[in-house]
Amino acid sequence: MAGRLRVHSFTVSLDGFGTGEGLTDDEPFGHAGERLHTWMFASPEEGGGPPDGVDARMKAAHWDGIGAEIMGRRKFHVGTGPIPDEWHGFWGSEPPFHTPVIVLTHHPRPDLVMEGGTTFHFLDVTPEEALERARALAGDGDVRLGGGTETVRSFLDADLVDELHLVVAPVVLGRGQRLWDGQEALEERFAIEAVAGDYPGVTHLLLTRRG
Amino acid sequence: MAGRLRVHSFTVSLDGFGTGEGLTDDEPFGHAGERLHTWMFASPEEGGGPPDGVDARMKAAHWDGIGAEIMGRRKFHVGTGPIPDEWHGFWGSEPPFHTPVIVLTHHPRPDLVMEGGTTFHFLDVTPEEALERARALAGDGDVRLGGGTETVRSFLDADLVDELHLVVAPVVLGRGQRLWDGQEALEERFAIEAVAGDYPGVTHLLLTRRG
Repeated sequence: MAGRLRVHSFTVSLDGFGTGEGLTDDEPFGHAGERLHTWMFASPEEGGGPPDGVDARMKAAHWDGIGAEIMGRRKFHVGTGPIPDEWHGFWGSEPPFHTPVIVLTHHPRPDLVMEGGTTFHFLDVTPEEALERARALAGDGDVRLGGGTETVRSFLDADLVDELHLVVAPVVLGRGQRLWDGQEALEERFAIEAVAGDYPGVTHLLLTRRG
Repeated sequence: MAGRLRVHSFTVSLDGFGTGEGLTDDEPFGHAGERLHTWMFASPEEGGGPPDGVDARMKAAHWDGIGAEIMGRRKFHVGTGPIPDEWHGFWGSEPPFHTPVIVLTHHPRPDLVMEGGTTFHFLDVTPEEALERARALAGDGDVRLGGGTETVRSFLDADLVDELHLVVAPVVLGRGQRLWDGQEALEERFAIEAVAGDYPGVTHLLLTRRG
C-alpha cells in the first residue's frame, strides 16, 4: 500500500530524548553532539556492524520506496522566526533526499530547488494537511516523517503515523526533547518489535500501526 | 569477586518509568498494573520464551550467588510513615528471598524472621551504610539491589552499583517514577549491552561498571 507515513532511524537516548539541549547551527543536536548517532556512522573497527548487518539493513530501509519527506522546521534550520534567505539547510547543494521535502514552518518562503531532485516546500499547515500534500507529491511512494522530536510527536498525536523505526542508543542524555511525552499506552495503537543492533548497546524498535 | 552490588530484572517502560502512578497495596505498580512484567510471567502460548530462552536465563541470574538483598521501603510496603505491625510484606509467610533482606526506612522496627531463611532488617541508614551491612550479611555472596526506582537511583547516585540488568518493556506509561532521572552520561561509568528478549518487544540491557 503506497502513501504510508513512515519514520526511519529516528534515534533516542535510553532516557527517551530525541535531541539534546542548546541546539545551534553548529551543534544541531545540542549537548547530545554526535552521541545519539554513533551507531549510524561507526566503521566496523569502531564497533559498527558489517555491510549486511542489522544496522546496515535498518539504515537502508530509510530510502526504500519513499516519494517525499515531511520535516519540522528545526531539522531544516535551528532557530525561530523567519529562516534567513541564504540558509539552504544542513546538507550542502545536493541534499540526500532526492524527493520533494515539506518543511513545516510558521514562516513560509518560496520553494527551494536543490540539485539532485530535492525541492523544499515551506508550508504553514496542520499535520493532516502536510500529509495530504506530501502524498500528492510522493506519487506511488510512501512519505517519510523525518523528525525532529516535536514533529514526530505531533504526527503521533494526530494518529497519522503508520510505521516507526526507532533506535535506542546506549547513552543517557538527561535533558532535551522527549519523544515519548504524551504517548501513554502507545502500545495499544502499535505492535512493537525489538531487535538488537550490531553496534554495542543499540536496539532497533519497529512499531507498526495495528490493523 | 564476591560482594558486588547487582540489580536484576528491573523493568522499565519505553519512556523509562520503573513504576506507575498511584501505588497501593493492591496495585503496587499503580496504573502500570502488570504491564511492565508481562514478559516475566507469560507462558509460551502468551508470547513468553522457552525454558532455555533468553528471558528465562536472564530471570534465573536474579538468584545466582546472592547472599542478601537491599530494598526500598516501598517495595516492602506502599505508603509513608511507620509500617503497620501486622504488615509482613507482599510475599506471604515464605518470601522468595531466602536470605537476609535490608529494608531501607526512616521508621525502623524489629527484625522480622520469616519462613525459608528470609529475615527482614529495617534500617534508617545511608546507601553506603546499607551496602556495608548487606555485605556482612551476605557472607561469600553478592548483594542484590531489589528496587524500587528511587532506591536504584539513590545507589547509582552514590556510585555503589556494579552491575545492572534492566529490562525495557514495550509499553509507554506516561507517568510514574523515572529511573533515568539524574543519570546523565551514565554510559561513561557503565559498558552497556543490549539483547533482544523472547517476549515480543522486550530488550534486556546489561550495564557493567567500567573497570
